[in-house]
Amino acid sequence: MQKITILIHCEDQKAIIASVTNYIASIEGNIIYLDQHVDANENVFFMRLECEFSTQNWDLELIKKDFQVNLADKFNMSWEIYTQEYKPRMALFISKYDHCLYDILGRYSAGELPLEIPLIISNHEDLKAVADRFGIPFHHVPFNKHIKEEGEKQQIALLKEYNINFIVLARYMQIITPNLIALYKNKIINIHHSFLPAFPGAKPYHSAFARGVKIIGATSHYVTEELDEGPIIDQDITRVSHSHSIEDFIVKGRDLERSVLARAIKLHAERKTMVYNNKTVIFS
Amino acid sequence: MQKITILIHCEDQKAIIASVTNYIASIEGNIIYLDQHVDANENVFFMRLECEFSTQNWDLELIKKDFQVNLADKFNMSWEIYTQEYKPRMALFISKYDHCLYDILGRYSAGELPLEIPLIISNHEDLKAVADRFGIPFHHVPFNKHIKEEGEKQQIALLKEYNINFIVLARYMQIITPNLIALYKNKIINIHHSFLPAFPGAKPYHSAFARGVKIIGATSHYVTEELDEGPIIDQDITRVSHSHSIEDFIVKGRDLERSVLARAIKLHAERKTMVYNNKTVIFS
Amino acid sequence: MQKITILIHCEDQKAIIASVTNYIASIEGNIIYLDQHVDANENVFFMRLECEFSTQNWDLELIKKDFQVNLADKFNMSWEIYTQEYKPRMALFISKYDHCLYDILGRYSAGELPLEIPLIISNHEDLKAVADRFGIPFHHVPFNKHIKEEGEKQQIALLKEYNINFIVLARYMQIITPNLIALYKNKIINIHHSFLPAFPGAKPYHSAFARGVKIIGATSHYVTEELDEGPIIDQDITRVSHSHSIEDFIVKGRDLERSVLARAIKLHAERKTMVYNNKTVIFS
Amino acid sequence: MQKITILIHCEDQKAIIASVTNYIASIEGNIIYLDQHVDANENVFFMRLECEFSTQNWDLELIKKDFQVNLADKFNMSWEIYTQEYKPRMALFISKYDHCLYDILGRYSAGELPLEIPLIISNHEDLKAVADRFGIPFHHVPFNKHIKEEGEKQQIALLKEYNINFIVLARYMQIITPNLIALYKNKIINIHHSFLPAFPGAKPYHSAFARGVKIIGATSHYVTEELDEGPIIDQDITRVSHSHSIEDFIVKGRDLERSVLARAIKLHAERKTMVYNNKTVIFS
Repeated sequence: MQKITILIHCEDQKAIIASVTNYIASIEGNIIYLDQHVDANENVFFMRLECEFSTQNWDLELIKKDFQVNLADKFNMSWEIYTQEYKPRMALFISKYDHCLYDILGRYSAGELPLEIPLIISNHEDLKAVADRFGIPFHHVPFNKHIKEEGEKQQIALLKEYNINFIVLARYMQIITPNLIALYKNKIINIHHSFLPAFPGAKPYHSAFARGVKIIGATSHYVTEELDEGPIIDQDITRVSHSHSIEDFIVKGRDLERSVLARAIKLHAERKTMVYNNKTVIFS
Repeated sequence: MQKITILIHCEDQKAIIASVTNYIASIEGNIIYLDQHVDANENVFFMRLECEFSTQNWDLELIKKDFQVNLADKFNMSWEIYTQEYKPRMALFISKYDHCLYDILGRYSAGELPLEIPLIISNHEDLKAVADRFGIPFHHVPFNKHIKEEGEKQQIALLKEYNINFIVLARYMQIITPNLIALYKNKIINIHHSFLPAFPGAKPYHSAFARGVKIIGATSHYVTEELDEGPIIDQDITRVSHSHSIEDFIVKGRDLERSVLARAIKLHAERKTMVYNNKTVIFS
Repeated sequence: MQKITILIHCEDQKAIIASVTNYIASIEGNIIYLDQHVDANENVFFMRLECEFSTQNWDLELIKKDFQVNLADKFNMSWEIYTQEYKPRMALFISKYDHCLYDILGRYSAGELPLEIPLIISNHEDLKAVADRFGIPFHHVPFNKHIKEEGEKQQIALLKEYNINFIVLARYMQIITPNLIALYKNKIINIHHSFLPAFPGAKPYHSAFARGVKIIGATSHYVTEELDEGPIIDQDITRVSHSHSIEDFIVKGRDLERSVLARAIKLHAERKTMVYNNKTVIFS
Repeated sequence: MQKITILIHCEDQKAIIASVTNYIASIEGNIIYLDQHVDANENVFFMRLECEFSTQNWDLELIKKDFQVNLADKFNMSWEIYTQEYKPRMALFISKYDHCLYDILGRYSAGELPLEIPLIISNHEDLKAVADRFGIPFHHVPFNKHIKEEGEKQQIALLKEYNINFIVLARYMQIITPNLIALYKNKIINIHHSFLPAFPGAKPYHSAFARGVKIIGATSHYVTEELDEGPIIDQDITRVSHSHSIEDFIVKGRDLERSVLARAIKLHAERKTMVYNNKTVIFS
């Protein structure tokens, strides 16, 4: 039994679902999941399908060719097809905070994440011991506003060397360069420690404390050139009160950052996210 | 522009989605919502579609006939089709608690519920003034274990007279008779004041307090002959602590009861619920 | 058995709790609730106590005098004492939205709110029928930027006539004048339909939709001259997804607005809120 | 500056708070946190205080002696005093599931838990590699219903050897013996994967799936001889739907188990829990 996942988007038109599901039926596939979304304002159609095939002479390349000729060309579709075996390769960018790092590596080691982590890049050497503990190659790439070019060059070289498909900034404290963002468009996930768009930029827990909010949050999003303005993948919040200090906000926030980032990583790795117009479609 | 909602369930088979969506395409319909679910254990397929038709000579009766002949007979489907104009007629059964009653009538008056409320039945006269305030016919039908038969007879007569499609027990404190349950199968919604299956039966807040739980809940479900064992529609919880008394549990619980019942009513009225095997499929 | 609630704030000093609890013990009171908070940054002390007295010759005026002379003068305290009988008088300001109005009047009629509602003021006549249904005096006071002065004058006259203690803006769509804010300092509660400080001002659901957030919220706060910048009383959120339209946001938001406003009203009426430095201390 | 935490419980009587706070004031202590609870049904008083002392000749043993003579004897109090330096020593009992283990060891390594973990005991050898990775002594103690006595003997010997103060069952799949429970009364924390009292015993996710609930939960509690009936420390839930399989329940449940167990560990280590009458008082 072979399972594939298909992602589609195109201009909304009549009979797209009928055409795609007909094709799947014609090659003896069984649809086990179908979800679709129409952005009515933008007139864009999104669909995610999972199908099973029991046919012995199942041929992925043939399906891809058929799909392009019979469907994609007709509806002017963008599409991707993944087999269940495929695991994307993820690079972790970190600085000095270790809570998201421990959480991700713990989940990874426990077999909860359908991906590979062949590479950790950090602008500090502090967390090398954690990477070593989990047996993951750690590269120290110095980076700050004065050595951006050299840092970017090293980063890109490592990402190529390790065949990285997507990047996760696990409380990485530097701003990613436009070149790298362009290379990994909608493939760099950041965790920001506020419920965006409230409190973008530095020190959001301090700002939240000063404002006297009763909830704090965290937001995972794809990185774009506009700081903290990229497409939001997931958000969550927790309650705080007057009795909590800034330090309490930070401690409570760590739990949010961990879980909101882990969910975004899983959604991305399972191909349940699509990006359009600076917003995400998140399939369940 | 005419919109219809189609609900389908049948044994899972290949090409159901393709066949249905083909048919919609063939009559110039545009699918604006499609969600499907396969119960893999039971091998049952469920689908909910919303389609729009701009065709002037759109004919509901023709569609229904086509649907039966071309699709339902072929796949051995159960199906229902609703137009957007159709509003189900709901009867409220109440006793002495008024918080759910005020909430439902407030939402109804504010135009938030796609239904009609032509009838309130109570086994007490206390809340007649509330019904009067909102201008809804109120019938006092005495009911207890000694006058079940007579009570049931009156209830059923009123439900027929008012052409009632479904019933909501808004903290109604009597047990519904098997005859009435059979007449309104999967069409009687109850609110129980615990997160079932914890604390079924009487006085769940007292039991929750005695057990020292840190969360209390409410559950809306369809009524079956087994008390508090029917298919669950929705549940929600709120946090409690050692500092809360039983009275605090009751006060906090009222907010849960209100919102969990209101959501179930809305889901049912919008035809977003399907029942199978004592469980619900709830479409979004 | 007589119960009183005492609220205190003053500069933080040693032995405040000991002195106050000693005094309560000296007059045979039994403390049934004590919560205190120290704002370490501002060095301010807050306390809320509930005490019971069984003494027959219990004398509130004597307690108040004692309290001032023995405690307040010594520690330079601000303090308030309330008996359990006292119910504050609340005015509702409304415009055309009726969902918060129905919710508040339903809760009020169900006996859930420890307050009186002797007055509804609206800048439109649309909701007079709702006020009438609940038997509450409704006054139409036209108000917009051109007739501010006259409107304010009428509002203040009515608030005086009805002896109003605090005001609730239940989706009132006009900006309150500085004079009225000054007269009811920290006594005007507003509900804003976003998780502030995100999306202040007009049309927050539209802004939230445009930004593609995954949670929407509501915030109840005391009104100050800075729009949507006053001390936050309570906040809550609900999840949304790409599948929700702006209209869905509005529908989901109504439930948030209702519950967040109702909680703020209850907290204020039960004297569980204190304001300092544009933030609130909310006692449990 | 020295900080201490005081926990007290005794029969409720007048002037307890005044007496304790007077004493703290008399030795120049500054109360920075005070929370108290009266169980009105049982007439029991609970209090937790944090105080700071700047006095140079501060003497903990003197305070303890004073406290006993001046307060505890008078009010017949049970009490405990901890300095901020004291870190309890925790043993982890595990079997084959590693998700809670990774989470706890990650938090521990990140410095989030105010405790020591000198010992891991498992009835299987599978997770030795994880313990090694974090450098924590791992002891394989075979245990099942046939070798209970020998297993218990080894467990108790190790707990003594390592000076263990409390035990955490991180998805340990064996039933703790009455002897061990007696030795560590209210000091063994278990995580159960349901919102108790729903679904006690084995396979709660399977039962939850069969019942068709819309929320699943996890519960951390102190272990007593009655299986899954001990005092509840914390609970949390997450939403599920018809679209989730039992495997999905298990995956979602892992996140609940992790966070609910981590919170219980932290509350216990920070001395924020008190047990009375099979219920907990949890201070904030």
